[in-house]
Amino acid sequence: MAVLVTGSVAIDSVTTPHGEAREVPGGSALYFSVAASFFAPVRVVAAVGEDFPKRFLRVFDDRAIDLTGLEFRRGSKTFRWTGRFDGDMNEAQTVDVDLNVLAEDAPRVPPPFADSESVFLANTHPTRQREVLTQVTSPRLVVCDSMNLWITTERESLVETLRKVHGVIINDAEARQLTKRMNLIDAGDGILDLGPRFVMIKKGEHGSLLVTADGAYALPAYPAKVVRDPTGAGDSFAGGVMGYLDQQGASDTQALRRAMVRGTVMASFTIEDFSARRLQELSRADIERRVGHYVEMLHVG
Amino acid sequence: MAVLVTGSVAIDSVTTPHGEAREVPGGSALYFSVAASFFAPVRVVAAVGEDFPKRFLRVFDDRAIDLTGLEFRRGSKTFRWTGRFDGDMNEAQTVDVDLNVLAEDAPRVPPPFADSESVFLANTHPTRQREVLTQVTSPRLVVCDSMNLWITTERESLVETLRKVHGVIINDAEARQLTKRMNLIDAGDGILDLGPRFVMIKKGEHGSLLVTADGAYALPAYPAKVVRDPTGAGDSFAGGVMGYLDQQGASDTQALRRAMVRGTVMASFTIEDFSARRLQELSRADIERRVGHYVEMLHVG
Repeated sequence: MAVLVTGSVAIDSVTTPHGEAREVPGGSALYFSVAASFFAPVRVVAAVGEDFPKRFLRVFDDRAIDLTGLEFRRGSKTFRWTGRFDGDMNEAQTVDVDLNVLAEDAPRVPPPFADSESVFLANTHPTRQREVLTQVTSPRLVVCDSMNLWITTERESLVETLRKVHGVIINDAEARQLTKRMNLIDAGDGILDLGPRFVMIKKGEHGSLLVTADGAYALPAYPAKVVRDPTGAGDSFAGGVMGYLDQQGASDTQALRRAMVRGTVMASFTIEDFSARRLQELSRADIERRVGHYVEMLHVG
Repeated sequence: MAVLVTGSVAIDSVTTPHGEAREVPGGSALYFSVAASFFAPVRVVAAVGEDFPKRFLRVFDDRAIDLTGLEFRRGSKTFRWTGRFDGDMNEAQTVDVDLNVLAEDAPRVPPPFADSESVFLANTHPTRQREVLTQVTSPRLVVCDSMNLWITTERESLVETLRKVHGVIINDAEARQLTKRMNLIDAGDGILDLGPRFVMIKKGEHGSLLVTADGAYALPAYPAKVVRDPTGAGDSFAGGVMGYLDQQGASDTQALRRAMVRGTVMASFTIEDFSARRLQELSRADIERRVGHYVEMLHVG
């Protein structure tokens, strides 16, 4: 089994109360694929420009990550994001964004990737999400993310995408904006009405909420005393979730709840350092230890 | 065993997106005592004025709540709070507040209450909190709340109170303000440095966090689709916690974690209707059923 992810591979510059990192590896597909690779093989479909530093590829070294679908485009520039986190660091402030290659044609799905069983459509134009999806033959599990920009400017196309996915992993502000409902369980139910059979709502330091026809299930974030840089936490969460679901070959409510635990744990590592540094130095034993500690924290009678 | 609570018994007027309630029973000691009474006998130490509607006392009817310490003061007026909740309803906006009797002398602890084993000092002037506390002979467990006003204007007195309590139940904004630390585990540790051996930080719809020398433990809120009026949720949480701890005769970390489950569940009922209406119609079986459902939600491997 394998998880195909399409999304951004970026050059990030981030400032937080704990320091700054200039021109470091980032992007939704990068965080997602490193996090997911601890659970299942990952296939990346993304594009970068000719300014993309080759040393950034070390992030993917020695992992079950297939980069056949990573296009290096001549004459194009890599997506760049510059942001900062202040105060309680629960929300990124975008200082500058250059879409660059993300504003061009969607990357192609290489033929050997067409048999992928799990697909994660990270945040991008909803029409692009469907273009990539149609190139996968018969995926068993398709999940997407989105963002405020598309909810506002491309609602119809986004609704069309939502009709074609099994699940959505989205943050709280986006869920509210998409459904115009303030209560998050209500918002989750509103998204289910659009087609998906599950919604995971990410609440940053406040944890996450799973909404399915079976009801609503909340989890806290892993208690984190060291939060250096929250960039990529949401994509690492999605990576942990999708990697685990692909590994288990299941996506019933119980599997989704266990997957959310893995997503929570992967996000908790990501925020401990800038870029994907902390994910890179992780072992499977580190992850299992933290999953054990988290599960134990939740087992209270 | 019994829990003594000192705090306010109030006349509230509240507006939320779901409606409004004018001149209804409210106040920290009221919500606390009703919630705690499902677990242990409660003793109320508070004062109201001669405008206090006698019919409000029905809230306490047929419960293990001893009102010997509830003073009806001639010539005084009852504490009144007028507030509203908007948007995600996670924070109350105070529209109007009349301290009235709360600005007078602290209520006296009746001699038969002096042997109380558990004491909860709900939010009031920290000097008043200590005045009440010194009238209890040898309490085994003393826990206090506070608020932004005292943190700003009476910090020294508050620090003196913190030296005399075993635990603190406080909200996230207050914990940050008190310690000048943004990270909530950091803030909790900062409060432990002031004397208490545990801190429970209430995060409204985002759940709660326990900080002790053993570490940090997070719990989500009970997923609530119906939130009519969040007034009193924090005091109901404290009531569930203190009632359960008194019932168990324990306050080690495991007992605190189990108590936080009861606090979470009591708060989840309070927000389902205005004033203490939902608490009033509850049975013990309702509470046990929801505790069971919540614990089950958290048992995920």
